[in-house]
Amino acid sequence: MVTNPGRRRRATIHDVALEAGVSRGTVSRVINDEPYVSAEARIAIEAAIERVGYVPNTAARNLVMQRSQAVGFIVHEPHSLFLEDPNIGEILLGANAALSLADFQMVCLIIDSERDTDRVARYLSGGFVDGVIVVSARKNDPITRIIEKLGLPSAFVGHPPDLRRLPFVGIDNRSSAFAITERLLATGRRRVGMIASALDRDSGADRLAGFTDALGPLFDPALVARVPFYAYADGVKGMRALLAAEPELDGVFAASDAVAAGALEALREAGRSVPGDVGVVGFDDSAWALRCQPLLSTVHQPAAGLGERAAESVLAQLRGEEPELGGILLTTPIVWRDSA
Amino acid sequence: MVTNPGRRRRATIHDVALEAGVSRGTVSRVINDEPYVSAEARIAIEAAIERVGYVPNTAARNLVMQRSQAVGFIVHEPHSLFLEDPNIGEILLGANAALSLADFQMVCLIIDSERDTDRVARYLSGGFVDGVIVVSARKNDPITRIIEKLGLPSAFVGHPPDLRRLPFVGIDNRSSAFAITERLLATGRRRVGMIASALDRDSGADRLAGFTDALGPLFDPALVARVPFYAYADGVKGMRALLAAEPELDGVFAASDAVAAGALEALREAGRSVPGDVGVVGFDDSAWALRCQPLLSTVHQPAAGLGERAAESVLAQLRGEEPELGGILLTTPIVWRDSA
Repeated sequence: MVTNPGRRRRATIHDVALEAGVSRGTVSRVINDEPYVSAEARIAIEAAIERVGYVPNTAARNLVMQRSQAVGFIVHEPHSLFLEDPNIGEILLGANAALSLADFQMVCLIIDSERDTDRVARYLSGGFVDGVIVVSARKNDPITRIIEKLGLPSAFVGHPPDLRRLPFVGIDNRSSAFAITERLLATGRRRVGMIASALDRDSGADRLAGFTDALGPLFDPALVARVPFYAYADGVKGMRALLAAEPELDGVFAASDAVAAGALEALREAGRSVPGDVGVVGFDDSAWALRCQPLLSTVHQPAAGLGERAAESVLAQLRGEEPELGGILLTTPIVWRDSA
Repeated sequence: MVTNPGRRRRATIHDVALEAGVSRGTVSRVINDEPYVSAEARIAIEAAIERVGYVPNTAARNLVMQRSQAVGFIVHEPHSLFLEDPNIGEILLGANAALSLADFQMVCLIIDSERDTDRVARYLSGGFVDGVIVVSARKNDPITRIIEKLGLPSAFVGHPPDLRRLPFVGIDNRSSAFAITERLLATGRRRVGMIASALDRDSGADRLAGFTDALGPLFDPALVARVPFYAYADGVKGMRALLAAEPELDGVFAASDAVAAGALEALREAGRSVPGDVGVVGFDDSAWALRCQPLLSTVHQPAAGLGERAAESVLAQLRGEEPELGGILLTTPIVWRDSA
């Protein structure tokens, strides 16, 4: 009986040879399905493989061929966001499904500290993955530089402004934000504010720009509450700040559905009715939108589709195809429900 | 200029030798810091390494030493659960932090289909990871069998009933459920039901058992709503079913905080006040608990701690230490807030 499986040494080709009473070369020929092995030796070796529990080291074999048959999925997230952002999970499952179909193993690598950045950079350099999908990269990201340097087949979800020649899949945050803000204005709102999150990312900055474009002369910089994350708690805080700045506010664009859910909570606290007193719209069409009371009007973000398309782009590059120039933008329909 | 980085071939030791005009053996000696290389050759080789962009293949090198310096983190989750269960993210970040400190790369592998199961099994067999952490394994899990067969250093978070000799880290779901149900009864409730989720997992079955124990003669099997997942939508459905079965219900134990949040929504719909008409308690003390109105009374699950301890167990096994017999159970304080 194996009492401590953790310490059992992995069986090698040498153990098989010893057990079968043949040379390592003969074992190797059987494992690699090569000719010139007697039926007798083959049977003895197969029995020995079973007895010693030998499993061929496909990792080593793949590496000889410079293929790991694995694709990395890199998530840069501060703690709270990874837990709250429903898009990341959807993107991840979309990418996993596409890679799985192509028989690639997706390995998800989390970057939560500077130490993680250095180690993931070494991992990518080390030949453990054939390609990589990157979500929520920021400006001046050292991982982006490493990917460029290695020439790793890659696809980014989202589009950090300093991403030069690397392929990406994304949505047009600016025109999506423009469209939902216009729709909110069309309900007759005139004092409209925004809870703007993640302004250090392309998505956050672009959503604010689209909002500003749509308001035109109605835009009032005092009615923008800036918060760090696309998170519920930031929605609560942002909404309180907006109400303090402008008690007559009658419309709010929240930078994500989680932020909108927090905003609804703060409006409830303050005794404002939605959509009666204040119209609220979000962004993402995630599970949050359907949990809100009233149901949230929002921009549908095709999160699973982003993951899928990013995976397909990496797979195409691995087949030797040219990546799309300028990236791929997926469409983002507006979903109008009850909150505005 | 590299116009298509995706197709750039990875530089090999052979390219370096060619560029420097020396033999591959000499390049290899420089890379591995071995003696007997002239200063002149060393300088030429270092310059050539820079020019051709050679990066040593640490994956291959590690594999020669049968070490990948990576630990797998396997999540088995149907789509919806992975997105909604805040514990998984916390466990993941806890494990990542502990592995990162020890300079191990955590690679997260998602199992979302049978196809994924087969491929992950091959990946584990292939020597890509030195050890593995497994969350939410179910009974008769093929991955568990593969881990046993390979003798991979491992730690399970949670304890599927057929996990025999493998180390695990968990909480005592049964006595935690017992404790919170007792506390709910102590508020004077007499018709108490449960929304029981995930009865195919140890955690779900044990929470129901603890609830049953605590109620004793008050237990009424008609007041158990069985739902598949620890999810908000299942909480809404479960609560509606309980109210239909027993309009006089005055207490509910929801199997998770997300389930409790759904239950609160259904109670609001039905015009019941909480905690006035019905006391509600949850399980997890996740972000959900603080989003509930009223704030949720619940069992604190030390999710990040579970990930950390599981990682530490794998690291200890990799150092050659014996895993703890019978697993490690972390404590679960009750957090009493406003919902009961």
